[in-house]
Amino acid sequence: MENGHTGKHRVAVIGSGNWGSVASRLLASNTAKLPSFHDEVRMWVFEETLPTGEKLSESINQAHENCKYLPGIKLGTNVIADPDLESAVKDADMLVFVTPHQFVEGICKKLVGKLRPGVEAISLIKGMEIAVEKFSEATIGYREDKEAANRWAKLFTTPYFLVSVVEDIEGVELCGTLKNVVAIAAGFVDGLDMGNNTKAAIMRIGLREMRAFSKLLFPSVRDNTFFESCGVADLITTCLGGRNRRVAEAFARNGGKRSFDELEAEMLHGQKLQGVSTAREVYEVLTYHGWQELFPLLSTVHEICIGQLPPTSIVEYSEHTPNLSFVGGSTPCY
Amino acid sequence: MENGHTGKHRVAVIGSGNWGSVASRLLASNTAKLPSFHDEVRMWVFEETLPTGEKLSESINQAHENCKYLPGIKLGTNVIADPDLESAVKDADMLVFVTPHQFVEGICKKLVGKLRPGVEAISLIKGMEIAVEKFSEATIGYREDKEAANRWAKLFTTPYFLVSVVEDIEGVELCGTLKNVVAIAAGFVDGLDMGNNTKAAIMRIGLREMRAFSKLLFPSVRDNTFFESCGVADLITTCLGGRNRRVAEAFARNGGKRSFDELEAEMLHGQKLQGVSTAREVYEVLTYHGWQELFPLLSTVHEICIGQLPPTSIVEYSEHTPNLSFVGGSTPCY
Repeated sequence: MENGHTGKHRVAVIGSGNWGSVASRLLASNTAKLPSFHDEVRMWVFEETLPTGEKLSESINQAHENCKYLPGIKLGTNVIADPDLESAVKDADMLVFVTPHQFVEGICKKLVGKLRPGVEAISLIKGMEIAVEKFSEATIGYREDKEAANRWAKLFTTPYFLVSVVEDIEGVELCGTLKNVVAIAAGFVDGLDMGNNTKAAIMRIGLREMRAFSKLLFPSVRDNTFFESCGVADLITTCLGGRNRRVAEAFARNGGKRSFDELEAEMLHGQKLQGVSTAREVYEVLTYHGWQELFPLLSTVHEICIGQLPPTSIVEYSEHTPNLSFVGGSTPCY
Repeated sequence: MENGHTGKHRVAVIGSGNWGSVASRLLASNTAKLPSFHDEVRMWVFEETLPTGEKLSESINQAHENCKYLPGIKLGTNVIADPDLESAVKDADMLVFVTPHQFVEGICKKLVGKLRPGVEAISLIKGMEIAVEKFSEATIGYREDKEAANRWAKLFTTPYFLVSVVEDIEGVELCGTLKNVVAIAAGFVDGLDMGNNTKAAIMRIGLREMRAFSKLLFPSVRDNTFFESCGVADLITTCLGGRNRRVAEAFARNGGKRSFDELEAEMLHGQKLQGVSTAREVYEVLTYHGWQELFPLLSTVHEICIGQLPPTSIVEYSEHTPNLSFVGGSTPCY
């Protein structure tokens, strides 16, 4: 696993958007300090020509700053921008993926046969605010190789960014995805002006369904994962801020009369909300297995999103709150 | 356990403040509907003379409204205010305690020998907003007698108020107490303007320490309790709103230069914050057992409250984040 020439690990970051630049900066600060890593962090840049006529990669290497996606923040002189994917990864034995998820598959195909043997990769969940060095956390999910997981954690940890590892890849991934559906529900509650008590109740029911759904799909998923940063903390962050919550709030304020398509076009310049598409995908899984009644919140979010139910349905569970005791949930009494 | 005369359960509410009135209203609405309960809910009133010269209990029985502590909301004609404690409880076989916790001991002493055999009692955690019928939740902790717990849940459940039962009295109680300490921490983060990511991280670390502390004190405490309404949902509510959070925010905004005593006098008219005194009590337990290093957040809150550390310490854990894996927590990497 170690680099043959020097025994030191070499890191390449695949992606140079806002979060890719943040990650490169953090990693470069750590590799410069940690003796088991090469100082240099190579960052693959999807090349663009800036309004000045300069290439983005050249601008980064000259100014040590990504003036387009993370202006005003120095990345470190040991971050080297490289517009050639193959060249960016060829010496690396630790790859950090920070591209939008829809590009990962295409990039991986291009990487086939171009990588060092034994190379390791990690995928980052976007949305952190650590560029400004506010205290924050993250969770790394791994399968079996705890030593590798700890090496990754060491590479990312700073005094303001605590990283934990859990042996539960599926749990960590599903937390990252399903929280966006719960954030839509939280946004509906905000749009209905129902207050913090109701919102907290909906977030908790959401967390309960996230856990039950994950455990039904992957029996290896562990309860503890939902107590990690990727679980309860990311859920809280996403339900307090975040665009899923924000657009869902607008949807509920309009009584569901303006569609998500319309609101996304207006509020997100046409970008689509991950929560809305995830809610549809989850609904398909629930329908396929006949599980809708077990997951009233996840089901209801989708049915509200497509206009089948009014936004107020998000707080109407009394008739059909399910028994989730098979995954450790308690049973409300009726 | 059932009332000898009619086979129906009789409910008495001990307390008639804001939350006592809310509880009486909810209970009276349910007892009127549920055949296994007597319609009448007797509410013990700590008698006061109103500015009009009228007695509070008489005013309630005449207007069916607590004009002092829950004005504008009808309690139901089957709520009977009774200023005589002994008379209020003498026929009841289900007692609902909703007085401030410092009065419970004195009231219990007065009740010795005055109660029906087999009487059951429940203690309510204050702070719900259900008077206005917003969707909300609660958890009932019980020991062994699940049938009794379910009867209590039935008595409290409404379409807008979901009640669950868990066989973990200590866990439910400790959630209700320790969340106030975490809310102080969350208030510090707010006062330092650190944003939602940091606040969510602190809330999660707080939840982790609540769980670990509870399990160390009472090995019977169950992880699942922290996923219930009394755990994660009440924690979120308390950390978003609530006076513990609010006064702690003011404390941090003042850089710790104005004491909690001073801020409580100004912002709460001298009422004391539960989180501050609980933090001190917890700290005593931690010191006694030599556990401070295992619980940096709980310890730090107290040390900030007494002026030993600055408010910014609330986000400085990197040097001493503990290994809580003995209670199922993951270990951050350093």
